[in-house]
Amino acid sequence: MSQTITVVEKILSANDRLAEQNRAKIEEAGVYSINIMASPGAGKTSVILKTIEALKPEMQIGVVEGDTAPVTIDADKVMDAGMPAVQINTGGECHLDAIMLQGALNTLPLDTLDVMIVENVGNLICPANFKLGTHVNVLIASVPEGDDKPYKYPGMYRGVQAVILNKTDLLPYIKFNMDYFRKGVEALNPGLAFFPLSCVTGEGFDAWIAWLKEQAAK
Amino acid sequence: MSQTITVVEKILSANDRLAEQNRAKIEEAGVYSINIMASPGAGKTSVILKTIEALKPEMQIGVVEGDTAPVTIDADKVMDAGMPAVQINTGGECHLDAIMLQGALNTLPLDTLDVMIVENVGNLICPANFKLGTHVNVLIASVPEGDDKPYKYPGMYRGVQAVILNKTDLLPYIKFNMDYFRKGVEALNPGLAFFPLSCVTGEGFDAWIAWLKEQAAK
Repeated sequence: MSQTITVVEKILSANDRLAEQNRAKIEEAGVYSINIMASPGAGKTSVILKTIEALKPEMQIGVVEGDTAPVTIDADKVMDAGMPAVQINTGGECHLDAIMLQGALNTLPLDTLDVMIVENVGNLICPANFKLGTHVNVLIASVPEGDDKPYKYPGMYRGVQAVILNKTDLLPYIKFNMDYFRKGVEALNPGLAFFPLSCVTGEGFDAWIAWLKEQAAK
Repeated sequence: MSQTITVVEKILSANDRLAEQNRAKIEEAGVYSINIMASPGAGKTSVILKTIEALKPEMQIGVVEGDTAPVTIDADKVMDAGMPAVQINTGGECHLDAIMLQGALNTLPLDTLDVMIVENVGNLICPANFKLGTHVNVLIASVPEGDDKPYKYPGMYRGVQAVILNKTDLLPYIKFNMDYFRKGVEALNPGLAFFPLSCVTGEGFDAWIAWLKEQAAK
């Protein structure tokens, strides 16, 4: 058993070293980078597309799409929105890691970008354990997932710098206790930046974009 | 690289042997067993509680709750519904495996049960790779997750004997192309049993219960 643990630690530490190399490469290109994590169907791609729409007049945004299968549905949408996208097909793996991102960094036109967004694999568990080298980790939760998710997936909520709560347009139709949700988030990650919003109505989106611009300008 | 692959194959094969032992133990007790898999927030616990409600007059149901954290929210709900529950806290692991279920089988009062339901960890990727020894695998998808999930998580959709599409009460408020979803499922798993339903309104639930009773009686 202790042997297994040693191996896991070694993998993580090698990953951390590669993540540092990725960060150096991203910073050298003057790019601000975001790792977006979420459950399947929380709306990662919708948030990314709407973020591109908002930032497009002033910024060039590149997207890395992490998928467990070779379908390019999400990458195609980004390219249709006029921005460069690279797909990482993990071949069934449940998370991105630093070496996968290293490959993508060699393919994206980094020097032409202002912001790079990584859409991690849809999974609330494993992606939290693998640093990629990005500047911030952002979690997208969604109203239909339920208000108990911070309590059930604490590792993910602990390791992020912002939480977006997507699909607020569905609040009238779903039992969702906002205080209970926020209390769970605050217990794990006090003072965390929090953006309830809807990609359908656009409500709340401005606050997210303002925060993102402020972070990127630092 | 080939060494890594060998190790993975060995782990899976040891897991398969334990899964066979689990199956023998479950059958010896005359129990019918179901492994329920889904994304976080698709409604696994809601479906389980409503299934207990429907079967309770004629059957005794035990539930194994797989969680990545030590919170017992779901196990408590099952016990409140008057049925025995055992929690497996995976300690951060993203799936249940056969050895974890072996431990739970030693704790549940198997001889008193008619049906055992295993609620796997909320994850659309890894649980598909680990047999537990249960009779059937059931996937719970949900309307708000989106109609493209079979295309994005093919491994999960291939390895199940039934798909429940939960939260159909939200269809009026969400863009969801039922034909596209079903076409994706059929391409991966032709003729698969399919139950669109809502735990809120109860619509479609009878068909799921009828199928379950039929399977358990075989």
